[in-house]
Amino acid sequence: MSGCPFLGRKHQLFTSKPGQTEEEDESQTGINKAAKGGIVYGDYLQLDKVLNAQVLQSQEKGNKIHDEHLFIVTHQAYELWFKQILWELDSVRQLFIKKHVRDERNMLKVVSRIHRITMIFKLLVEQFAVLETMTALDFFDFREYLSSASGFQSLQFRLLESKIGVPDHLRVPYNRRHYKDSFHGQESATLLSTEQEPTLLQLVEQWLERTPGLEQDGFNFWGKLQANIEGGFKMEKHKLEKMEDSEEKQELLADLNKQTEIFTALFDPKRHEHLLSKGERRLSYKALQGALMINFYREEPRFQVPFQLLTSLMEIDMLMTKWRYNHVCMVHRMIGSKAGTGGSSGYHYLRSTVSDRYKVFVDLFNLATFLVPRSWMPKLNPNVHKFPYMAECYDSSYNSYSSEDSD
Amino acid sequence: MSGCPFLGRKHQLFTSKPGQTEEEDESQTGINKAAKGGIVYGDYLQLDKVLNAQVLQSQEKGNKIHDEHLFIVTHQAYELWFKQILWELDSVRQLFIKKHVRDERNMLKVVSRIHRITMIFKLLVEQFAVLETMTALDFFDFREYLSSASGFQSLQFRLLESKIGVPDHLRVPYNRRHYKDSFHGQESATLLSTEQEPTLLQLVEQWLERTPGLEQDGFNFWGKLQANIEGGFKMEKHKLEKMEDSEEKQELLADLNKQTEIFTALFDPKRHEHLLSKGERRLSYKALQGALMINFYREEPRFQVPFQLLTSLMEIDMLMTKWRYNHVCMVHRMIGSKAGTGGSSGYHYLRSTVSDRYKVFVDLFNLATFLVPRSWMPKLNPNVHKFPYMAECYDSSYNSYSSEDSD
Amino acid sequence: MSGCPFLGRKHQLFTSKPGQTEEEDESQTGINKAAKGGIVYGDYLQLDKVLNAQVLQSQEKGNKIHDEHLFIVTHQAYELWFKQILWELDSVRQLFIKKHVRDERNMLKVVSRIHRITMIFKLLVEQFAVLETMTALDFFDFREYLSSASGFQSLQFRLLESKIGVPDHLRVPYNRRHYKDSFHGQESATLLSTEQEPTLLQLVEQWLERTPGLEQDGFNFWGKLQANIEGGFKMEKHKLEKMEDSEEKQELLADLNKQTEIFTALFDPKRHEHLLSKGERRLSYKALQGALMINFYREEPRFQVPFQLLTSLMEIDMLMTKWRYNHVCMVHRMIGSKAGTGGSSGYHYLRSTVSDRYKVFVDLFNLATFLVPRSWMPKLNPNVHKFPYMAECYDSSYNSYSSEDSD
Amino acid sequence: MSGCPFLGRKHQLFTSKPGQTEEEDESQTGINKAAKGGIVYGDYLQLDKVLNAQVLQSQEKGNKIHDEHLFIVTHQAYELWFKQILWELDSVRQLFIKKHVRDERNMLKVVSRIHRITMIFKLLVEQFAVLETMTALDFFDFREYLSSASGFQSLQFRLLESKIGVPDHLRVPYNRRHYKDSFHGQESATLLSTEQEPTLLQLVEQWLERTPGLEQDGFNFWGKLQANIEGGFKMEKHKLEKMEDSEEKQELLADLNKQTEIFTALFDPKRHEHLLSKGERRLSYKALQGALMINFYREEPRFQVPFQLLTSLMEIDMLMTKWRYNHVCMVHRMIGSKAGTGGSSGYHYLRSTVSDRYKVFVDLFNLATFLVPRSWMPKLNPNVHKFPYMAECYDSSYNSYSSEDSD
Repeated sequence: MSGCPFLGRKHQLFTSKPGQTEEEDESQTGINKAAKGGIVYGDYLQLDKVLNAQVLQSQEKGNKIHDEHLFIVTHQAYELWFKQILWELDSVRQLFIKKHVRDERNMLKVVSRIHRITMIFKLLVEQFAVLETMTALDFFDFREYLSSASGFQSLQFRLLESKIGVPDHLRVPYNRRHYKDSFHGQESATLLSTEQEPTLLQLVEQWLERTPGLEQDGFNFWGKLQANIEGGFKMEKHKLEKMEDSEEKQELLADLNKQTEIFTALFDPKRHEHLLSKGERRLSYKALQGALMINFYREEPRFQVPFQLLTSLMEIDMLMTKWRYNHVCMVHRMIGSKAGTGGSSGYHYLRSTVSDRYKVFVDLFNLATFLVPRSWMPKLNPNVHKFPYMAECYDSSYNSYSSEDSD
Repeated sequence: MSGCPFLGRKHQLFTSKPGQTEEEDESQTGINKAAKGGIVYGDYLQLDKVLNAQVLQSQEKGNKIHDEHLFIVTHQAYELWFKQILWELDSVRQLFIKKHVRDERNMLKVVSRIHRITMIFKLLVEQFAVLETMTALDFFDFREYLSSASGFQSLQFRLLESKIGVPDHLRVPYNRRHYKDSFHGQESATLLSTEQEPTLLQLVEQWLERTPGLEQDGFNFWGKLQANIEGGFKMEKHKLEKMEDSEEKQELLADLNKQTEIFTALFDPKRHEHLLSKGERRLSYKALQGALMINFYREEPRFQVPFQLLTSLMEIDMLMTKWRYNHVCMVHRMIGSKAGTGGSSGYHYLRSTVSDRYKVFVDLFNLATFLVPRSWMPKLNPNVHKFPYMAECYDSSYNSYSSEDSD
Repeated sequence: MSGCPFLGRKHQLFTSKPGQTEEEDESQTGINKAAKGGIVYGDYLQLDKVLNAQVLQSQEKGNKIHDEHLFIVTHQAYELWFKQILWELDSVRQLFIKKHVRDERNMLKVVSRIHRITMIFKLLVEQFAVLETMTALDFFDFREYLSSASGFQSLQFRLLESKIGVPDHLRVPYNRRHYKDSFHGQESATLLSTEQEPTLLQLVEQWLERTPGLEQDGFNFWGKLQANIEGGFKMEKHKLEKMEDSEEKQELLADLNKQTEIFTALFDPKRHEHLLSKGERRLSYKALQGALMINFYREEPRFQVPFQLLTSLMEIDMLMTKWRYNHVCMVHRMIGSKAGTGGSSGYHYLRSTVSDRYKVFVDLFNLATFLVPRSWMPKLNPNVHKFPYMAECYDSSYNSYSSEDSD
Repeated sequence: MSGCPFLGRKHQLFTSKPGQTEEEDESQTGINKAAKGGIVYGDYLQLDKVLNAQVLQSQEKGNKIHDEHLFIVTHQAYELWFKQILWELDSVRQLFIKKHVRDERNMLKVVSRIHRITMIFKLLVEQFAVLETMTALDFFDFREYLSSASGFQSLQFRLLESKIGVPDHLRVPYNRRHYKDSFHGQESATLLSTEQEPTLLQLVEQWLERTPGLEQDGFNFWGKLQANIEGGFKMEKHKLEKMEDSEEKQELLADLNKQTEIFTALFDPKRHEHLLSKGERRLSYKALQGALMINFYREEPRFQVPFQLLTSLMEIDMLMTKWRYNHVCMVHRMIGSKAGTGGSSGYHYLRSTVSDRYKVFVDLFNLATFLVPRSWMPKLNPNVHKFPYMAECYDSSYNSYSSEDSD
């Protein structure tokens, strides 16, 4: 009877919930009956709203410019997808906040939703190809009608940045004004209250700090690692020193010294604090240790999905930065590199945001600097090192399906 | 002052129109003043509508399912882009209807907008990757709430098919019912009135029939081509017959006969009528000739952009068909291949629409069957064959910029 | 000193292996020394081979056609990537064959490599866009020189199909000849020996059959599920029968009967054998049960990565089928739908391979037919059901890093 | 008989060339006969070379690392496509050099091939997604074996940059060394001789300088434009001065002054020379005028395809810069931001190449700064202004098809 198989394989069966009495079920049947005549595609998607939201300012001013429609639809599509990203991001943050992630059953959800965000960002990067079918000349024909409307005013994009964890003090000011000055009233309030919430970065940090194996009185990953690495370098140095003198020997020694320095710095907590204060690191020292541990032992069953999560978080950073860069390219094409009327050049402002300052998970990228040969990694015996992490979830009373998605 | 460089380089200058008196200009300045405090990003894009149109049926029924949000947003994004495609399609049809395309100045617009449609379709094909992050199990959790809502009920998609030129009688019925039965009231009226309008196929057909060079008393492309091809085949046959007898000779002769048959059929108008009646051809005989002519002489300055247009029309067909195929794949993944509750299988229905029956410009694809060596093509001397086509636009009083985009 | 940071961060450190004596290390240093003056980019990539493999047949025959170069390079790029896919596929099969997958530490590798295959296929689908810049006319200019060379003769593509598990008897014959007739000598031998090896499908099947929880004397998933579903349907029926008579009641009852039938068939092993014999199912009955179990309990830590694997396997099927479909579209564009000279139409042959017959993991798609409400699923208590699956890997002596990647 | 429809619709017909005697034809038949048994797929593509060029250094050194294969194949695919880009680029440059582009029939070829280059670059940007399936840890396992091999040593990429027109003196040095220092022997010679050839930028520049309508004693586009713009600004200023004093008035006046300055600079040839010397402009003053003219009159039939060309040239710049940026992102992920062993950080070097310095057609982007309302553009009457440009091609003796593709 129904119609398209995807939307709307009618499915009145299976409606009873466990514990429902039969009386309740009958009312349920009534609902199904209503549903049947029920909601249709256009109403379900509220297309009366979505498809009647394209008002061309050029047309309002009596000079309809064809391409303004594309401009509007593209930006609306961006905003729709931003909403979806926020939806996923909020649910993931909720899962972390409610400590659900201590129940490892939720890890699949977390990693799947973060992965979904990356897929949306990929689409958003590709979406520029559509807007790029508009030439600078086409844009010029209506840009006067946009007056002061500005993508700088996209609330959702700012929320997105905030919730992921772009820190306020690292943002590039635009025309010497803070981005929040563009928002007023309810929007401004929303921004402020969002800032009070834990960011994805902070939640991931806390989660990383709990990585099983970091305990100094337990597996003591960090201590063991430091010992192994220091030992390793000593052995390397010893070998090199026994070489005959040569230019190569000098070079290799110099290299070794540089490497040694890098790792000496890694094991120095004060150095970490210093980098934190400059914004070059973002994670706490302990969280950094957890991230490195997950990287090294990623093949352990308990670390496989966590490792996927770290990888996806880096992808979000990469894709946001690619989105920014594509944005810059389009702006260059649309208005050139010269200043707007208002002062400093928008092109140059945007360009400055394509920067590591805006990479939230920059520490995860920089872990690549601290890799060592597998033989230097502390040995892990899974029979001995029963991680509390996993045990924990089994101790809790079992209720994963009843509380499904209570985010 | 302004804000983001893209949206909204404020641009109060350049507002005077030619012929405006200064008095009018002053009022204009007033408008600019209003504009300045003026419209902001969120209002311009009507985000209050667009971002408040996500109502989860599962949540309404007290059982919020996380992934329904993705389902809604994805479909809304599809509908937004369908609207944009219709916008471009209508403008192109308008340009053809108003005979503007006889003024070749409009060809750039036509070809750019058709190209834009292909870029949007590419995005829509890629967009499936986002919805595919939802598993069958995730979908199962809320599909009961969709009741009879059905993608089959997307008015815009039907309009799109109609306006391009999918013919009514070639559509695959679903559960023995015509697609129009799914629409009522205003939607039904819209569909019916659309059917009265000329389709893109018909407009392109008329345009192709005007291809300069087809005139029998002029260049007489078709007559000359037939003579050359018949001559060519005769010569080939002659050569083959002089070969010594061998298996190869027999094969080559058989091949030649087949090729000869194909071209004999091409030059037979009755054969064309027959194929038309079966739906295997869609263009009139004369339009087919025009299309072949544009293909053969595509490097002539006057045919370069028309050739690009034919190429883009094929791309639309290809991309729509890829979109359909991606849709089928997703449905298979979401609900399997079994029948829905309502009768015949949605999966199998959708699969049947991935068919050449739905390729509107199938004739352009099949032109590939009728290619011949360049040396067989009638010679064209541009110094002699001054085509009326190009001349025509210069005779009309010159007004291209004042009437810019009066579609 | 070195050069590009990606290729070639020179890295002479960290070369010692555990257990190496210092003497060995010295020779190692020697190697490093050699390496230093060492291999350069072009030699490393053997560019003398790769970049000197483009011989245009048209040029050989004295009539260089520009676009033949694109044709060659595109096909070479396809073959390069096919080689990479085979590389990944072989390594995954090896991991399964050596029972390494019983050591769950290898699951990350398996799932990552299968995921990589999907990423390559995505690229290959997109790659058609490049070849599509060639028009039918461009192709016509050189296709005579290709003589009998044929993509049908791509050994690697056939190996790929075979190794994944496209069964011989389900292949569509082309011109009444089997695909293997196109191969001779060494190629033919390679094909035959490949057929003796276990396919990915078979290996996944064996792995699914081992899914912990299927044991009849243990958790007995299948028995419990059948009981729950039968009970569920009975209850549904009971409810419906108490409704007042109405058209709707009749419809709902009819629907219920259909659903009941579907599940009755699911629990009938003979039905399964019948579908197997027709090629509509491919997995053993027990493997099917395992796959359904992983789907239902995908959030259990032990099933998260296995669930990802099943999802990626479906993606491979989807992408191969999309690749085939894109191929068909291009062929339509290049040569039309008419028969080639040799007999049956290549277009129609290729079209017939875009079919569920070529979907190796079709059972995983069709699982979507067998979903039931979460409340119907047998409850699983992880404290009680200690699955042997996971236990197993910890019992084995711990050697994951030493035997790293012995595939 | 043949096989796959795409590769290899056997096509022995149509082999005679105009002017061939029958005797020649017979030998031709002989060739066809040979061809028939003829070349097969694998030989045609020289797969013995292409598929035997993957030698893992890790394996050579006795420690096979699985992911090195991906690393090699990805880079080989890049090089294959670079070769194709060079093939297209050389043919386009040849068309310009031989003055063929004065025959407008070649414009379709030029614009199609430049478009093809953009499609290849899009693929190359997407191709990073495949390499990104390799993690930093996977890379770490074999990067020591790469010794000094370096992407910095890709000859083809350097040729590509050179031939498009990246100027030597604007390149960022790496470790204080010029990029050419990485090449020796034949490679070095190739680079040097390439530098003697005209770049795409120079050829486009010469072509733009010939834009019909620039002649001072003819249409005199530049003179007319300057007059119109100066008049326009004067009128705007007059209007503004009549406004009542207000903050807004002051702002508008300030804006107007800025705009006026921008255009005053545009019409100052000395300013242009100054910017040229700093590398901020790349085109000659006259070529810049031609580019602006094509932009303004892009809808004129003679300017439609030239306008498409300018658009595609910008796309090449954009895509190369996106390719560079994606490369940087991957490097960050693979080796972090720290310095390599050799000195300055590769990451930071690469980052510095994602810069407008490397945008060859930067002038075309910056044209967006110089747009004015359509009413300010000099009127063009095609009946009066018969451009020599188009006429020229008809005066030449007609031979487009005989000399087809003599590049």
